[in-house]
Amino acid sequence: MSVSEFDLIRDFFVRATGARADVLLGIGDDCALLRAPPGLALAVSVDTLVAGRHFLVDADPLDLGHKALAVNLSDLAAMGAQPAWATLALTLPQVDKNWLRAFVDGFAALAVIHDVQLVGGDTTRGPLSITIQVHGFVDPLLALRRSGARAGDRLLVSGTVGDAGLALQLMQQQLRGGSVDGRLSRRLDRPTPRVALGRLLVGQASAAIDVSDGLIADLGHLCAASGVGARVELARLPLSPAFREHCPPRQWRPALAGGDDYELLFSLAADRIEALRDRCRGAGESVQEIGRLVDVPGITLIYPDGRESTEIPDGFDHFRG
Amino acid sequence: MSVSEFDLIRDFFVRATGARADVLLGIGDDCALLRAPPGLALAVSVDTLVAGRHFLVDADPLDLGHKALAVNLSDLAAMGAQPAWATLALTLPQVDKNWLRAFVDGFAALAVIHDVQLVGGDTTRGPLSITIQVHGFVDPLLALRRSGARAGDRLLVSGTVGDAGLALQLMQQQLRGGSVDGRLSRRLDRPTPRVALGRLLVGQASAAIDVSDGLIADLGHLCAASGVGARVELARLPLSPAFREHCPPRQWRPALAGGDDYELLFSLAADRIEALRDRCRGAGESVQEIGRLVDVPGITLIYPDGRESTEIPDGFDHFRG
Repeated sequence: MSVSEFDLIRDFFVRATGARADVLLGIGDDCALLRAPPGLALAVSVDTLVAGRHFLVDADPLDLGHKALAVNLSDLAAMGAQPAWATLALTLPQVDKNWLRAFVDGFAALAVIHDVQLVGGDTTRGPLSITIQVHGFVDPLLALRRSGARAGDRLLVSGTVGDAGLALQLMQQQLRGGSVDGRLSRRLDRPTPRVALGRLLVGQASAAIDVSDGLIADLGHLCAASGVGARVELARLPLSPAFREHCPPRQWRPALAGGDDYELLFSLAADRIEALRDRCRGAGESVQEIGRLVDVPGITLIYPDGRESTEIPDGFDHFRG
Repeated sequence: MSVSEFDLIRDFFVRATGARADVLLGIGDDCALLRAPPGLALAVSVDTLVAGRHFLVDADPLDLGHKALAVNLSDLAAMGAQPAWATLALTLPQVDKNWLRAFVDGFAALAVIHDVQLVGGDTTRGPLSITIQVHGFVDPLLALRRSGARAGDRLLVSGTVGDAGLALQLMQQQLRGGSVDGRLSRRLDRPTPRVALGRLLVGQASAAIDVSDGLIADLGHLCAASGVGARVELARLPLSPAFREHCPPRQWRPALAGGDDYELLFSLAADRIEALRDRCRGAGESVQEIGRLVDVPGITLIYPDGRESTEIPDGFDHFRG
């Protein structure tokens, strides 16, 4: 096949997403030229998904295109930033037009929802891997950092946790031919970045992080950055009906350390919680209080029977045995 | 080994480069927060280097760190942009602290020269691959695009061409144990991004591109974007002493299609050429006129014996044959 790199990029990516007025020059030159809005900070994040590590080699390319962008938009959501631009570095073992078309469709469908324009890319031959960088805008004084939480703040999380982690665990236990409840696998394959909720938390939350490594691992990052500890009431964890149906009793690991939730975990001064609940209800965003932050370092889990423990299941860690 | 992803990023990358005043929040949160200067456009480019494709698996990590950043800075140079920030997505088969330290050293040494701060990254386990995105600033009305060249403009190139391509060709022909002239291999392993020259060309050059795929392939891109053709006088190509010493007579391919030069190829109105030569001389930048742009589409090579030909050696193309 003699499709050139340049034809490939042009055909599949140039018209993949809409045209924003702040993109002065898009794909096709040595650089894109972009106009950042005055007064706002540019929020930037980059994430790589590697075949065999973050997804199966034969994963549906439509899902992959969605997920690769979603995990990056989730980082913007966690800062309270409004998404704007993305670049895509795609490494492919060969040119497969059907695969590429589906990948771009999955990417573009999510990009359009969030008014994100693809402004640059690089396509190379090699083991399948996807690196996306996203850019968004946020008031630098109000951006949601990990470091602003204070003892006494309430701890909240959006949506439900554990669905993706449970889906992965069930897939790994599954015999060939078995299938996992689609309500769970969809949460693993097509996560929803909580962009609107992130915007709503700007000026409200004292700290925020997105849950990618697992609820407790990411709570650990927030606590470390803020210099606080946390008490988490397991009975208050928001668990989906599908999760309750399929998770073995007393198995907390998928909900606490499964990862891939892409929910927002955030802290809030106690006197702001009612107003926030109202705003979330009005905006159709689901949030749940799951505990509070304390002076004492470390994370304490409070089990439904009242037992307390500081033993935490490990989060996802790329380089840990 | 149980070095975690987070320790790894923190240890090697956080202090890799200097601290810029326009970086409000660097590595360590969900996003970096950056302040773009008002009135200027943000120039953005991303490039991936894949082991076995763009470099040998056992390549010197010090060179790799340099080259991965250099090829990206070269894209900023080709727009006339002032470099500012970079992100690094690094996929590694295993954690090798010595390798990482050398890679970061190579990256950082070049970053410091150009006042570039590393503001974000992602480290994952997988086949060795490096994706860097760079960000710079340029006046949007004066940025060097590929599309501004006009018939009658002179065609110029910086530095010398063909050294890297010849080094690669000689390495491939080499028997085990043989070595390639260091003056050539250094140009392949540690290219010099022509950032200062790019800045000097802002408001002067009518079009510019960096030579990464080969002189003729990249000239083709410039001509296509500008809607012009070109006549190139081979006798005027700037060739290094080492190139003349090692290149077989009448072998034009390494100079025309070798790639990896990372020189700037640009066009200039004829009446600006003397002033530009003076400015370049003053700034210690070497540029050479090699031909001119014409109305007729296509590229014509004029050989030293006066023969003309439109047959062009193929440029480097990731997905061709």
